Amino acid sequence: MKIYRDYDDLPKIKLPLGQEVSISDSTIRDGAQMPGIVVRSHHKVKIYEYLHRIGIEKLETFVYNERDRKAIKLMQDLGYEFPEITGWARANPADIDMVLNVDGIEETGILMSVSDPHIFDKMGLKSREAAEKKYLDALQYAVDHGLRTRAHIEDMTRADNYNFVFPLVKQIMDIDPDCTIRICDTIGFGVPFEGVDEPYGLPAIIKHLRNELNVKNIETHCHDDFGLAVPNSIAGYWYGANWSNVTFLGIGERAGNAELEKILLFLMRRIEGFDKYNLECLVEFAQFMEKEIGIRIPRNKSVVGKNVFAHESGIHTAGVIKNPFTYEPYPPEIVGGKRTFLVGDSSGIEVLRYKVQEALNELMNVHIEVDKNDKRLREIQADIQKLYNEDKRVSCISDEEILAYVKKYFMFNPMVSKDMHRQDEDDNPQEAPTGKFSRDPHLHGVD
Amino acid sequence: MKIYRDYDDLPKIKLPLGQEVSISDSTIRDGAQMPGIVVRSHHKVKIYEYLHRIGIEKLETFVYNERDRKAIKLMQDLGYEFPEITGWARANPADIDMVLNVDGIEETGILMSVSDPHIFDKMGLKSREAAEKKYLDALQYAVDHGLRTRAHIEDMTRADNYNFVFPLVKQIMDIDPDCTIRICDTIGFGVPFEGVDEPYGLPAIIKHLRNELNVKNIETHCHDDFGLAVPNSIAGYWYGANWSNVTFLGIGERAGNAELEKILLFLMRRIEGFDKYNLECLVEFAQFMEKEIGIRIPRNKSVVGKNVFAHESGIHTAGVIKNPFTYEPYPPEIVGGKRTFLVGDSSGIEVLRYKVQEALNELMNVHIEVDKNDKRLREIQADIQKLYNEDKRVSCISDEEILAYVKKYFMFNPMVSKDMHRQDEDDNPQEAPTGKFSRDPHLHGVD
Repeated sequence: MKIYRDYDDLPKIKLPLGQEVSISDSTIRDGAQMPGIVVRSHHKVKIYEYLHRIGIEKLETFVYNERDRKAIKLMQDLGYEFPEITGWARANPADIDMVLNVDGIEETGILMSVSDPHIFDKMGLKSREAAEKKYLDALQYAVDHGLRTRAHIEDMTRADNYNFVFPLVKQIMDIDPDCTIRICDTIGFGVPFEGVDEPYGLPAIIKHLRNELNVKNIETHCHDDFGLAVPNSIAGYWYGANWSNVTFLGIGERAGNAELEKILLFLMRRIEGFDKYNLECLVEFAQFMEKEIGIRIPRNKSVVGKNVFAHESGIHTAGVIKNPFTYEPYPPEIVGGKRTFLVGDSSGIEVLRYKVQEALNELMNVHIEVDKNDKRLREIQADIQKLYNEDKRVSCISDEEILAYVKKYFMFNPMVSKDMHRQDEDDNPQEAPTGKFSRDPHLHGVD
Repeated sequence: MKIYRDYDDLPKIKLPLGQEVSISDSTIRDGAQMPGIVVRSHHKVKIYEYLHRIGIEKLETFVYNERDRKAIKLMQDLGYEFPEITGWARANPADIDMVLNVDGIEETGILMSVSDPHIFDKMGLKSREAAEKKYLDALQYAVDHGLRTRAHIEDMTRADNYNFVFPLVKQIMDIDPDCTIRICDTIGFGVPFEGVDEPYGLPAIIKHLRNELNVKNIETHCHDDFGLAVPNSIAGYWYGANWSNVTFLGIGERAGNAELEKILLFLMRRIEGFDKYNLECLVEFAQFMEKEIGIRIPRNKSVVGKNVFAHESGIHTAGVIKNPFTYEPYPPEIVGGKRTFLVGDSSGIEVLRYKVQEALNELMNVHIEVDKNDKRLREIQADIQKLYNEDKRVSCISDEEILAYVKKYFMFNPMVSKDMHRQDEDDNPQEAPTGKFSRDPHLHGVD
């Protein structure tokens, strides 16, 4: 018999290959390219600080203009050992020179677009061979000048992998066996399941890179057009990648990238033996991004949304008040979050009892236990339910409103015994509330 | 050699088991329970209409109070054959009676919480056996009264499946072999990979239900606490489930549910032989939810976010202007979306050229081609780049601003020959813009 009644009871999962895995961040590169936002230099530095607090190993940045280089300098001036700042270049010597010209950058990504639409339509090249030569020449140039390299295999999930990409990777390995092969799922076509072959199957791609081409350093970079960026990144680790390249909140081109915070949570909470990151600043980091850069965060955004630890509906709140483990995925403090209870149209008596009790205790600075059959509580409930039954109220009942109800019904009414109002209710069943609020705390469920 | 240069070239994926799959929606049930929002009766009817337009087979709703029942009546009055309206009940006769009392409802979900924290802490039962009896009695009651049934196996991914849940399901099958077994990944602990066993592995759970217990109707209901609701739902189909229960935009308790729109897109665009849904109203549906119910939609939300077909950065826009297939996942009209080009801090000359040309053509009602080396265009570029280089501008350049630039530089300046300004630039290299805008359209990349 297996018993899971607390977080510590829940078994962790083993990564099948047991390799060490790390995270490289692209929030200030791909993230900053998100249409409609501008990430200024001081934002980049602040993002760098948050990434440092979390313990992220690496980030990448452009080095093209004065603003890019100013941000790099400001980050370097902080003197942190990590994240390592790495560069980004197109596959030509001029771009790589720009990376070389920045002091303190020792690794660069090199863009190698491999799908036919990118080679022919976007770049206007005449043949795949021309692309291959361009990429290998640039790689050789970077290696010759002492840079560590990452090959950004762009749009690999819509490319002719067996006939073009894998042979290219073989040559990359010949030039730099330590080169990190970044599988760029540029348009989000990747699929995380086994049995899906070329060009979409991340498991098949990674297995081929590992087993047939002896690639040691494999990284995923997954876009979310089909909503699969996170599972594709995790599938990366699952099948043998040792890096994921992600952005905070998943910001980036179009539907954006895999969310850093989801990958972090999965690794830290679900994978055995994993404790190298600190997630306590995630909620604060998200608030910074919302306030300073204008990234909209829906209430139901995993990990950092306002609702992740907010409870309103009947069964939920009743369960959480008894034991948070019933309806919470992990303790809020893990990510710097906070548990809240809301009174709304799907609430039951238990959350109202809890909120009224809280208000009373705050008002009178004593500890009071309110019974769920207290007549005054039921009167507040009836008032609230009337609001929603008229089908006009569209927001939750605020803490200030709860306080007003408490003053109205508790401060100016004499205390009466529990039995008395029980009697009342039994005598006058027609007065019993008829809306959601009339039911017991188990009424509204989730599954 | 494989060539993928257009959407039609991209191979579709086969569901390994080839079963027919369907979608049941919970937007007006689990979705409406989302803390902080109120979904009013007329909203529910409108949601029902959108689901009908898409072609969704089934939805579920509460039947507890007057507002619930009013919404059901309004939906039924539309006279649509689908989605079928089904009920939701806790495992007791009183709840099931409430479902029976609503005309036209022939199927109900029955909540069967199976994890120990839910059985003992939330429900306060004394034993698993007591829970089992309660659930089977309720199921029998529903069957005896002629309802089709769904067993909502709540918190199954934190339950003792082999010792408690699977034996329970066996008994459920004895009572109603057609019962739909809903795997409720209530707190989002499910994992979509093979090789993960009890209690998290969706593939393992589904295989057991299919192969050992002969369950014909399997449904997933996945929450997004760990960011895996969508892949878990798709893993459901992949390993043999025939239903997914989802909500539009993923609204729902805490981090919400799997997003209907992502599941739809994956099925319609990626799975072979799948064409039964119509996605053309998805963007409009999302706008309705944002405007009327206040659901915040981030720009980078897959499928329905503003940015899904918005292009700003250099390489991106240059590629898309040449051939949208380079950087778009599917044609915008599939989901009722629209391609937009934005001029911002990561833009290159190509998007500016395109926008200026568009403004000119609109102003003068003729077709004009602007060369990317046109001096006036380069002057506009320099003006814009100055804004961003000062590191103060935090928004994109609006269409109105582009129009103002066009008026300033094109309407009041005489046309000059292309060669002349080429000459100019060569003569005065120090005047060449130094920011991002100075570079060619391939400058800023994605991968």
